[in-house]
Amino acid sequence: MPTEPRINLRRLQELLSEINMFGFLPETGGFNRIGFSDADMAVRDRFAAIMEADGLAVSRDAANSLFGRFGAEGSPSIMVGSHLDTVADGGAFDGALGVAVALECVRAMKDAGLEPAVPIEVVATSEEEGRFGGMLGSEAIAGRVSAEWLERAVDADGVTLRDAMQAQGLDPSAIPAAARRPGDVVAFLELHIEQGPVLEQKKRPIGLPTGATGIINLSVVLKGTANHSGTTPMDMRADAFAGLAEIATQIPAMIEKSGSDIARITIGKVELLPNHPHTIPGEARFSVIIRDRSEDVMRGLQTLFAHVTAAVAAAHGLVHQIEAKSFIAPVAFDPQLVRLLSEEALRLKLPAQKMISGAGHDAQTMMALCPSAMIFVPSRNGISHAPEEHSEWADIEKGAQLMLSALMRLSAVS
Amino acid sequence: MPTEPRINLRRLQELLSEINMFGFLPETGGFNRIGFSDADMAVRDRFAAIMEADGLAVSRDAANSLFGRFGAEGSPSIMVGSHLDTVADGGAFDGALGVAVALECVRAMKDAGLEPAVPIEVVATSEEEGRFGGMLGSEAIAGRVSAEWLERAVDADGVTLRDAMQAQGLDPSAIPAAARRPGDVVAFLELHIEQGPVLEQKKRPIGLPTGATGIINLSVVLKGTANHSGTTPMDMRADAFAGLAEIATQIPAMIEKSGSDIARITIGKVELLPNHPHTIPGEARFSVIIRDRSEDVMRGLQTLFAHVTAAVAAAHGLVHQIEAKSFIAPVAFDPQLVRLLSEEALRLKLPAQKMISGAGHDAQTMMALCPSAMIFVPSRNGISHAPEEHSEWADIEKGAQLMLSALMRLSAVS
Repeated sequence: MPTEPRINLRRLQELLSEINMFGFLPETGGFNRIGFSDADMAVRDRFAAIMEADGLAVSRDAANSLFGRFGAEGSPSIMVGSHLDTVADGGAFDGALGVAVALECVRAMKDAGLEPAVPIEVVATSEEEGRFGGMLGSEAIAGRVSAEWLERAVDADGVTLRDAMQAQGLDPSAIPAAARRPGDVVAFLELHIEQGPVLEQKKRPIGLPTGATGIINLSVVLKGTANHSGTTPMDMRADAFAGLAEIATQIPAMIEKSGSDIARITIGKVELLPNHPHTIPGEARFSVIIRDRSEDVMRGLQTLFAHVTAAVAAAHGLVHQIEAKSFIAPVAFDPQLVRLLSEEALRLKLPAQKMISGAGHDAQTMMALCPSAMIFVPSRNGISHAPEEHSEWADIEKGAQLMLSALMRLSAVS
Repeated sequence: MPTEPRINLRRLQELLSEINMFGFLPETGGFNRIGFSDADMAVRDRFAAIMEADGLAVSRDAANSLFGRFGAEGSPSIMVGSHLDTVADGGAFDGALGVAVALECVRAMKDAGLEPAVPIEVVATSEEEGRFGGMLGSEAIAGRVSAEWLERAVDADGVTLRDAMQAQGLDPSAIPAAARRPGDVVAFLELHIEQGPVLEQKKRPIGLPTGATGIINLSVVLKGTANHSGTTPMDMRADAFAGLAEIATQIPAMIEKSGSDIARITIGKVELLPNHPHTIPGEARFSVIIRDRSEDVMRGLQTLFAHVTAAVAAAHGLVHQIEAKSFIAPVAFDPQLVRLLSEEALRLKLPAQKMISGAGHDAQTMMALCPSAMIFVPSRNGISHAPEEHSEWADIEKGAQLMLSALMRLSAVS
């Protein structure tokens, strides 16, 4: 009878440090491994070599996602991991932690002399952070990438996906063929930092997302008249910013009326024209992001927002225009997998918090291919996508141990 | 007995057209004669030649203001005019109209064979639009320019006043000595476009400002926490823009409580950080301009604004900071001159509207030297500082006729 496997925290820390030798920015303390950058390519070469040294069967697909297989070839696998790319000045944990935990779980099982009946594939997905506007790696695995999109995709600097990949010797036209067949992957699990403040606030080391919010992305324009701030009486103004401010203050009432406990409406980006202290704003352009776990609630909030905007615009003498830029449907993770994680957390005496993920993750995309679920660990001050991003190692150890237990059950180790 | 002099409208139109041959921008239809630009220098050379051809005694002071004297040398004068410089893409009327009307009044008096007992000086002031942050021409005449300020003054592109003037062969160090002595100028009159919508709205061809509002210029910073719009619950946010919006919506109540019929508070410039749709605004920086005819009212509004900002910041978990960038005191024009203009308007059967100027003008500065007053003519749609700036010639003719009558009374023509 082999010993009960345990996470080796020091080894996990060293593995994460090794990953984070790539793309480190000494000026900020952050990391830049944006998709298909030299640092992103180099970290994958290193991680492939590490997995080979661990005795895994390593492969890379056309989208540049990396796989390390533990167990027999040919039969359906359990996939576990996250992404190795970062945003342009991101933190040490977002993505990389989930990849490192996946390999540590396999190492712990191997150390304990365990062999999975269902093979385990460690995955390091590519381009999750959306340099080109999607989650390319997991979308490729799940078969959600069209040839048409691949031709169109371009980053914020105008670099096409095609050029970025070809510059690294990769062929984007092979991506659609990289899709896994239904049944090839029986489950996908991902450990990730929460990137929000809920677990820290509730003092829980573990979060178990039951789903991820959908996203409605609106672009709104209010047009008034840009006049002299001194010569134009208050009651003769068509002040686009005054209209925007009134809309923004009604957000709590909108959520109260048509939202839910998880509903979120955010105005994050505002541009005024001409944006001059002595001129009444003639135009306000702003973003509105509506999120909820329920598409019905999202649509209800969108309708209410449009009503409020129309009423405020009329009251202020403004012309308004609302453009729906994009829609991402909410996703529910696999209830059986979430229950398994919940049972294992209980068995390990780890206080776990059911919650909804507000950020996007590979696991959402993978739901299109196979049952998927996630483990969250707390983020200090809820901060991510910044050099200050941090998670406590005591929490990470608990999350990793939970992942190991779940993998043992799913892979029916012997 | 000479004939009653009349404004020659066609001659006035031609004079304004001649001025506006300088700095015309064919792309926008606007004008660029910013202070000490080549176009600003050239229009003054032309205008000096025009006044000389009209038989006036022409001089230019160290600040580049131009004077054309009609009447005897040596004795105190009545000064009439406005500025010839424009903003970077301004209209055809702002400043230039007042200069053209001043010369047309003199021409009309000369045509009628009139000679002023009190000499009249037509003035084309320099740099009224504040390229260097003041109203240099009238401030120099009124003796309000210090050598220290001259050393410091710099435009938005970092060009010093010294360099800009020296490039045109002018010597800024001579400016303080250009101040007129008290008593040298017995009155200053200026015709100007309203730059606001009030006269058009009230269908009055003439505005008679009894004063000009003062200006408090505040720069406000609200600091919260820039977090992920998806992962941060509504009740765990410190959203700097939500705070700004709440402050902005309270402006009407602030004016209701501590303002007046003329009080104006404007938020014209807003910058959010990081200004990204998916990130809760961590910081909002914005301008606040408070105007009123009364310094007490202005100070009361400033205090109330600070209270409201502090309360909103506390409610939203924000840190706030209010910096007073500048203060310009309100000015009352000379009541006797305003009464004289009002009496002449009545005599000429011109409907005149007493009002407060919301924009800054040379006449405000000149109050430091001598009794001053203004005549406004309506601005179409209240627009100025833009190529669309326009005033109807029928209104301009009435305003010019009023100026001529006022000058006749003040100069005791014979």
